This record gives sequence, C-alpha cells and structure tokens, in this order.
Amino acid sequence: MSQEHADSAARWEDPRDTARLLTTCQDRPGIVAAVSGFLYRRGVNIIHSDQHSTDPEGGRFFLRLEFYLPGLEERLDELARDFEAEVAREYAMDWRIVPARRKKRMAILVSKLDHALMDLLWRADRGELHAEVPLVISNHPDLCAAVESFGVPFHHVEVPKGARAPESGALAEHEARMLDLLDNAPGGPVDLLVLARYMRILSPAFVRHFPQRIINIHHSFLPAFEGADPYRRAAERGVKLIGATAHYVTGELDKGPIIEQDVIRVSHRNRVEELKILGADIERQVLSRAVRWHLEDRVLVDGNKTIVFA
Amino acid sequence: MSQEHADSAARWEDPRDTARLLTTCQDRPGIVAAVSGFLYRRGVNIIHSDQHSTDPEGGRFFLRLEFYLPGLEERLDELARDFEAEVAREYAMDWRIVPARRKKRMAILVSKLDHALMDLLWRADRGELHAEVPLVISNHPDLCAAVESFGVPFHHVEVPKGARAPESGALAEHEARMLDLLDNAPGGPVDLLVLARYMRILSPAFVRHFPQRIINIHHSFLPAFEGADPYRRAAERGVKLIGATAHYVTGELDKGPIIEQDVIRVSHRNRVEELKILGADIERQVLSRAVRWHLEDRVLVDGNKTIVFA
Amino acid sequence: MSQEHADSAARWEDPRDTARLLTTCQDRPGIVAAVSGFLYRRGVNIIHSDQHSTDPEGGRFFLRLEFYLPGLEERLDELARDFEAEVAREYAMDWRIVPARRKKRMAILVSKLDHALMDLLWRADRGELHAEVPLVISNHPDLCAAVESFGVPFHHVEVPKGARAPESGALAEHEARMLDLLDNAPGGPVDLLVLARYMRILSPAFVRHFPQRIINIHHSFLPAFEGADPYRRAAERGVKLIGATAHYVTGELDKGPIIEQDVIRVSHRNRVEELKILGADIERQVLSRAVRWHLEDRVLVDGNKTIVFA
Amino acid sequence: MSQEHADSAARWEDPRDTARLLTTCQDRPGIVAAVSGFLYRRGVNIIHSDQHSTDPEGGRFFLRLEFYLPGLEERLDELARDFEAEVAREYAMDWRIVPARRKKRMAILVSKLDHALMDLLWRADRGELHAEVPLVISNHPDLCAAVESFGVPFHHVEVPKGARAPESGALAEHEARMLDLLDNAPGGPVDLLVLARYMRILSPAFVRHFPQRIINIHHSFLPAFEGADPYRRAAERGVKLIGATAHYVTGELDKGPIIEQDVIRVSHRNRVEELKILGADIERQVLSRAVRWHLEDRVLVDGNKTIVFA
Repeated sequence: MSQEHADSAARWEDPRDTARLLTTCQDRPGIVAAVSGFLYRRGVNIIHSDQHSTDPEGGRFFLRLEFYLPGLEERLDELARDFEAEVAREYAMDWRIVPARRKKRMAILVSKLDHALMDLLWRADRGELHAEVPLVISNHPDLCAAVESFGVPFHHVEVPKGARAPESGALAEHEARMLDLLDNAPGGPVDLLVLARYMRILSPAFVRHFPQRIINIHHSFLPAFEGADPYRRAAERGVKLIGATAHYVTGELDKGPIIEQDVIRVSHRNRVEELKILGADIERQVLSRAVRWHLEDRVLVDGNKTIVFA
Repeated sequence: MSQEHADSAARWEDPRDTARLLTTCQDRPGIVAAVSGFLYRRGVNIIHSDQHSTDPEGGRFFLRLEFYLPGLEERLDELARDFEAEVAREYAMDWRIVPARRKKRMAILVSKLDHALMDLLWRADRGELHAEVPLVISNHPDLCAAVESFGVPFHHVEVPKGARAPESGALAEHEARMLDLLDNAPGGPVDLLVLARYMRILSPAFVRHFPQRIINIHHSFLPAFEGADPYRRAAERGVKLIGATAHYVTGELDKGPIIEQDVIRVSHRNRVEELKILGADIERQVLSRAVRWHLEDRVLVDGNKTIVFA
Repeated sequence: MSQEHADSAARWEDPRDTARLLTTCQDRPGIVAAVSGFLYRRGVNIIHSDQHSTDPEGGRFFLRLEFYLPGLEERLDELARDFEAEVAREYAMDWRIVPARRKKRMAILVSKLDHALMDLLWRADRGELHAEVPLVISNHPDLCAAVESFGVPFHHVEVPKGARAPESGALAEHEARMLDLLDNAPGGPVDLLVLARYMRILSPAFVRHFPQRIINIHHSFLPAFEGADPYRRAAERGVKLIGATAHYVTGELDKGPIIEQDVIRVSHRNRVEELKILGADIERQVLSRAVRWHLEDRVLVDGNKTIVFA
Repeated sequence: MSQEHADSAARWEDPRDTARLLTTCQDRPGIVAAVSGFLYRRGVNIIHSDQHSTDPEGGRFFLRLEFYLPGLEERLDELARDFEAEVAREYAMDWRIVPARRKKRMAILVSKLDHALMDLLWRADRGELHAEVPLVISNHPDLCAAVESFGVPFHHVEVPKGARAPESGALAEHEARMLDLLDNAPGGPVDLLVLARYMRILSPAFVRHFPQRIINIHHSFLPAFEGADPYRRAAERGVKLIGATAHYVTGELDKGPIIEQDVIRVSHRNRVEELKILGADIERQVLSRAVRWHLEDRVLVDGNKTIVFA
C-alpha cells in the first residue's frame, strides 16, 4: 500500500521507427558480419540481437535483430529489396522484416470454457498483447455476450455431433465455414489463430492453411497426458505437479512444436475439479506468454522444436 | 486440443450441511479429544482437520475442522451453545463455527490500476471465490464502467490532494465517507475489505474498524521494498526476481501479517515498465490465493504472523 | 556476509519421548474421537496431526499423529497392546507406532553416476536424513572409494551382460546375491532401499521382498518419458522444462506411486549433456525430499498414489 | 529406472580452439558490424553472441561472443593486438579475450558451515565448474579434513575476537595473512574468491584487492534481511518464501551487484532450524550458478547491477 504515482498506467510502446529482422539459413562463417555490415552502411542502429546455431558444424543459424531506422516506413521497401539482393541471396536465407508498430491480427477459437479467452481479450485490450482481435469463433453460443462486451465480433459455427473431416483429406463443412470467416474478416485475413481451449480436433486440411500460425493451449505438461481429459488422468496417476503447454498445431494431435510450458504444485487433497481450477491459472499464463512471444516475432521454428528469443 | 467433455463447466460447491470450526487457545493436552468427542456425540462427521501448535511447551494451539452434520442449519444454534458450554469455556477458547454455504461479503478498494480488481471480480463471478461483492470504492472515477459491467455498484470517493488523517487519530473525511458506504451497504455490513492496488494509506483509525479483515496486495516481496514505488527500486537494485505480498493491514505500513507471497524471474533486459507488467500477473495470483484462503476461513492470525491451513 | 552466530551447526533433533502413530482404515464417524480420547486418557500429548479422507462417503481414512509421552520407551509395548485392543480392532485399522528416535536403516543401490548417492550419504552424515546406511551395492566398482570415505561398506555385485530375471518369476542370480547382502547386513535387515540412479531393472520377484520400501529416482517428469534415456528424448521433443520423479518401485517399470516431483526450466540452447547436468540437481533435491519424508513416516500409500503429510 | 547407457559420465568440454570476447563501451551505431567484420576477416567463426544496451539513447553497450578459431593458442596474441588497434581503440572499449580451455583459479573462504563449500569442491571435482581450487581458508579449523579429502590445501587463519579493520583503512592483521596466502598460492595468484558462508566482514581495504572478483552467498533474498541472522528474522517476520542471493562483494555490506537469487516455499510449520536446512539447498544452487556464470565469463558488471548472459 504505497503512495500513488503518476505514471502507473503507462504501457510499453514500440517507437514508430523500430523493426525486427528475422533470418534463418545454413550456418557458415560471416553471416553476422554480412548482416550487421549491411545494416550499418544504411544507418541502422541495432538495439538488440539474439542468435542461435543448432550445431557448431553444419547446423542451422537463426537470428533475430531489433533495430532502429529513422524514417523507417518510407525506407522499408528499399531496405528489404537491398537486403535480399546484397545479403539474403548469398546465404540462401529465409527472412522477413517486421515493423514493430504493426499489430498482428489474431483470431480466437473457443468452446465453452472462458478463462483462456477472457485473459487474451483482456490483455489485448490493455495493450499487453500487441494485437487486434477481428473475430472469435466458437462451436457453442455461450460466450457471445462476454466476447461482444470487448467490442469483438462473435461467430457461432456449430459442429455436428460426431463430425469428422472427410476421408479425402478435405475440410469438414464447419471448417470450411470457419475458414471463410477467417479469410474474409473485416480488415483482411488473420495472421494468427489461437485455440483458447477449443475442444475439437482440427483436420490436417484445415491446419495446412495456417502453417506455424495456430497456437493451442493443452492442459497438461506434454508429452505427459496427450489427448483427452488430462486433469482426470493426472489425478488418477497421482502426479505432484500439473502443467500446461502452448504449442503450434500440426497435423498430429498434441505433437507440434512446444513454445512454452509451466507447472503448479498439487497434492493428494486436490480432486479433479480443483485441478481444473488450479490448472486454469497456469493455462492462462502459459498461453499468454506464448502468444506474446509469437506476436513479437520471438519464436522461430526448427523442425519440431522452437527457438524462443524471450 | 482434446475432445470435449460434458462437465467442463462444473464448479466446486460446498454441500449445504457442511461447516468449519475454528478455534484457538492456550495449548494443553486433551483439546483434540474434547473437541472430537463432543462432535462425535452429536453425530457430526469430521471431513478434514488441521492443527498447529506454536510451541510444544506452553504455545498457542490452532485448530480448523471441516465437518458434516445433516440438518446443519436447524441445529447450528444448539450446537454452538453446547460447544461453548461443554468445551470452549473449559479451554478458554476463541472460536467460531462458519457454515460453508454462507458467502462472505467482500468490498474492494481500488485506484486506477485495474488488473487486481478485474481478477477478483472475474473469479467471484465464476464462483472461484465464494463471495458477494456489494460495492467497489475508488479514489478515481476511471474504473466505473468496468465495475458496473459485473453488476457491482461503484462509488467514487475523492481524496483531496495531500490528505492525511487528523493528528487526533480520528478518520479523515474521505475515510468517514467510505466507512459510511461500507457500513450501509445494501444487504448488511461487509466482512472483508480488499485493497486491490488502492494507492492511498489508510489511517490507523480506519484500519481499527476492520481488524484482520483488510487484505492488501503489496507489489514487492516484503520486507524488501516496503513503501512507495517498489518496481522502480527493484530495477535500481538489480534484483533477479520480483515478487508480490498479500497481507492483513495493520496500523503500520506494509508491516501486517503476511498471508501469501510469490515471485517471478526477471533479468537485466526488463525495464521498469516491463517489471510492472510481469509483476501484475504475480500480484493477481498472490492476491486471489490469499483472498480465497480468507474466504474459506483457512487463515488464522498469530501475533504478526499467519497460520495458513491451505 | 553476516556476523557469525553461535548455533550455526545446530540440527533438528527428535526428543526421546516422541513417537508417530500412523493409521489407515475405512472412513466412518468417530475415528478421531476414538483415537484422541484413547491417547488423552493415557496422558499422551498430541503435537501434530494430519488426516485425509479419499472420499467423504465410503472412502479410506488416513491419519498421522506426532505425540509426546514421558517415559515413552518403557510404556510403548503397553500403549501398543491397548491401542490394538481398545481402538484398532473396532475400526479394523492398519496401524503402527514409530518412536521418532529410531533411525531407519537405508541401503542404496547405484551404478556409475554419483550425484544422487553422494547427496544421500552427505545428508545422512550431516543428520539431515535420520538414517543409518549399513551398505551400498553397485553393479560397477567405480564408486567404492567415494562410498568408503563416508565409512559405509561398499559391495560390487556384477550383473552379467543381458541378464534378465528367469521366466519362472524367480530372482536372477545377482539379485539373489543382493538380497543376501541386504538381509544379512550387520545390525539387522534394512528398512528402505533407495535406487540412486541404479540403471538396471529389478525383477518383480525382487521387488516383492520390499513392498513400498524401494524408492527410485527417475530422471523425468513422469508419466512423460517413462523408460530409457529420458534426457535425450526430452531434448528431441523440445520441452521447456525437465523434471525428476521419486516413486515407490512396483512390478511395473516407472509406474509405481509417485512421492515427489519437480522441474527446472531449460531452453533451446541446452544440449543433452547440459540437460543431464541441470537435471542432476533436480534429481538430488527430489530424491532427498522423498527419502526424508519416508524416513519421517510422512508417506502413506493409497493404491497407486501417495498421501504425503509434508 | 532405465537401461544403462554408455555415455552417462560424459561432460561438456570446451574445445581447445574456442574463446570468449567480452567488450563494453559507450553505445553507438556500428559496433557489432566493426567487431563481427574484424573477426570474419581473420577466419573466426562466431558460435554464440549476446549483447545488451542499457539505453537505446546514450547508454552502455555490452557484448559477449563465443568464437572458434583454428590454432587459437598460437594466434591469440596477434588477434588481441590487432583487435586493440583496429576496433577497440576507435570505440574506447573495455575488452578481454579469454580462451575457454583456461581454468580460472578459485579460492574459497569459509567458516564452520560446510554445505556451500562442499558443493563447490564437489562440482569442481566433477568438472561442472571449470576451475582449479588452489586453497581454502577458514577462520576455524573444523573443515580441514573435509577439504583435504579433495586434495585441496586448507589454511586456518584465526580472527581475534572482536577484530575490526584499523580505522586507517588498512588491512586487519588476519586479512594481511589471507592476502599473503592468496597472492602466493602455488601456481600463481587467484582469479576469484568465493565466500562460501564466511561469517566475517571483510574490510574495504581487503575488498579493493579483488574488484568484481569476490562472490558472496547471502542467506536471504536481498535486499530483504541484509546483515546478520536472516533466517531468524525471516521466521519472525512470517515470510512465506525464503531465499538466497549471490553477489559481488563491495565495500558496503550486502549491497554489491546481485548475480543470482532464488527462493523456496516455507510455512508456519517451519521453525528457524528447519529454515536453515531448507535454505542451505537454495544457497548451494544459487552460489553454484553464480560461480559457474562467472567462471564462464557470463557476468558483466554495470554500476551496481549485473548483466548475466546465461
């Protein structure tokens, strides 16, 4: 209980002339010199830098730079074109430059449980998550009012009982409807899809539309308790910690690259219903960290693992 | 991402015939036998029991029992009268019996920061906190709409610049107004007052009205960084963890009995504004745990310390 | 860096007249009254008490009491005989009374890795673990000198390459030799067997000799990464936390009742060899806590789970 | 309990041609380009890189590079000379290049408590800490045998009761004796001095001989409980977590730059003696992490804070 201070509501804000350079390539000597030399010659000031090599010999090289360039917006196209020509081609780089001011567009899929959804909406609203939320889709109508109270459009896309994706590898009908909503969201297509306890399995055909752009929160410490009903199974196994895992969704259930995990202590006293309440707090924290890192371009995917420059 | 299960929205609920017996007295042999014998003779079934002695020789004894008694509500008065006559008097006990169904009435004081307030309102709304919130009072008007969206009355009680409690030990004028609101809340007086980042110091005169019934969240790991602006001071000292502390408020600033504490790791990269964002998460968790334990009568005060039967 | 204080080497010590009563039975009203009434009538003072019911209706009841009785040693036999006759029979209790002074006899099995072994020997030596270590057995000779430097006998019992327990469910030959050493340890048979990274699977026939008396440390957060080489598999899965699990050994590999677990944060930077070094610290902590709780009779087994009155 | 694997005792080892470049200077554009260009032109391969700016505008810049250069040892002098001439002078850098193979020489000061000392000796022995220990000094004779069992020389330097450093700012007599031992250690002077629960205050005159080269473990979460007897004071304040802090020693008691901190949960049940036992584990972990980071040149000092490139 301390005296009031004036700046208490201030929030971190990216200055308008800041951007991130992300690049991945085969590791070999000279990459840092080439990149930093290029930037220096254009008057760019490197604010922060992270790099990682998967192996000193013949591994992959990952780099994330935060930099400052006066007049960034006008000079961005030229900078990108020159970088491709003068650096990226030589090293066969995968790369992108992302202005820090640009908000990513994040859609959320949810079922009936509201805790993860509410936490994301609330953090986006406060500016803790640098994102716009153009829509929320649910297979249940229950959370409509809660979502709309944030000024976010809510869409109910029912899933028929026992619905499965067609054998053909095509989309299920409800998935086609969701895809349509996501592609035609007002303001343009979405950058990121967050499954905030969406309790349906998405077909590989659907997932392929959003490579490394769907984040799911699984309510266990993966790979323990993959699949359904992890809290009940945790109670039955008598574990002393329960956890949550945020990961990118791939075609294989609960097997995608892990972005973040955390755990909380439980005891013989906690019944399944209490595990769910305790776990909800860990789910929210783990998911919001993973989403924030993704929004800030801090997560790079290396096969089935992630490199997190947190 | 697992298959949907039916009971996902189920919440823990106290059965109607359950109550808690809290008792404190000078330690001596036979207390447990006397209490449990008394209960057994009346057909009470003990569900759970916790006890603590501060010292094997001549210390204080603390007991918390959860018990089940069919027809509790009709039999409560008689049970209490007999307990006083047959057990409590003999051991000079401080004691109370609290039916688990009864919701405590929790008022919240807040300034401009909304994270701790929103978390409490949201958990009360979901039933995670077994409490009614008859009103929220703030020294700023900013959070009025947010509070009222939960159907909770909001009162703005301005604090004049530089206001201090009178030398006499009397209430300041704004405190008198708050006390009036708290005492005349619709539905009766409040049981618990939570300072959810209320950034004003309350006078000892005000605090005396709510002995062991005001919980404050301080945004540091007490006793480190007592007083104003702990995040700035934490950044200046270069600590590697920041924390939060929930404690009962006493006449001495930041010195009351600690109920709960927790910390989160930070690094040289985190500036003060980021410490505030990271810290907000720990504040919410620590405060909600402390409030839940208080609402469930799990916190007993022993001088300037707490015994938490969590 | 503070001024020296005199009592710095003092250690916790059980007074000679203290004991623990452990009891388990079908839950029904009156158990606490019966037990505490019995003890009170004999002048016993209850110092501490923990209880747990697995279910309010028809579950199992677990009780652990610490009590003080002047002249305990002379009165123990009579107390036990009376407890059986007056209380235990009525409730069909499983029970035992354990004088706190009595040190349990703990044998340790180990292979080549020394960290868990050294930690146990060192804590026993300091008095942090209230145990005697009558012998250490290893399938490798490497740690002989390290063990003997603590004054503890070391036995090398070789395991032939590819050795397996006979089909018949009998002991393998090396297991028979180990059993012989354990049964004929100087000072009497052992109470507890700790597998401190013993890298061989014990046969069900061997395990049956020590029901709920073999504690293993597994180097993962079970049930994740059961079986061989968990650190390599953790690195391959890209988990963000690694863990360790102490559990009682049963006939099924890595499936026994979990006593304690903990985790430590890792990142994409950590290669398998570093996971092993980081994990070694968590293994030591988890194992030493589990062993300490077992030695203090704080662990009760309920089917395939544990109740830990820590 | 898994099958044995062959490489279990393997340890991480720095290849002989690896080194670290540490540099600090006023921040300005072009530093990374200058350093990485210089290294690239000499055939150096950057393995890992960390950087930090205290402020985007006019702050200090900190860089740590791990690099690989075939034939490092023969080429080191030339590399250093050229770096000074071609890069460091231009940016007015503080810098050093440290071959990874070189073991730092670490002396340990201790009083009677052995846990922190034993942990360091044991980790150095296993190769977890890349250090030689040329000597241990104590103000008590008690730990002589324990130290010598590691093959490390032990020196008892008594401190007279109530000894204080002379007013003049000169060394106390026992400090002069210690300094003599440290300077004349066989194999050359020591690089690092670790106070592993050395319970005497060192004079500013002594500390000045080892700027940023004395690491102390304080048994509290600083700045809480600076000074004497923190566990007793923690128990009296009723905190719910206790901690430990490793920091560089400066002239002001418990005020030096913090390298690492951690905490452990405690409860109303834990008496002071138990806090000491629980705290000893956290002290060991915190100290060993801080010492390892220092030995690997991962800690840079920025005024009264540290930058840890862990």
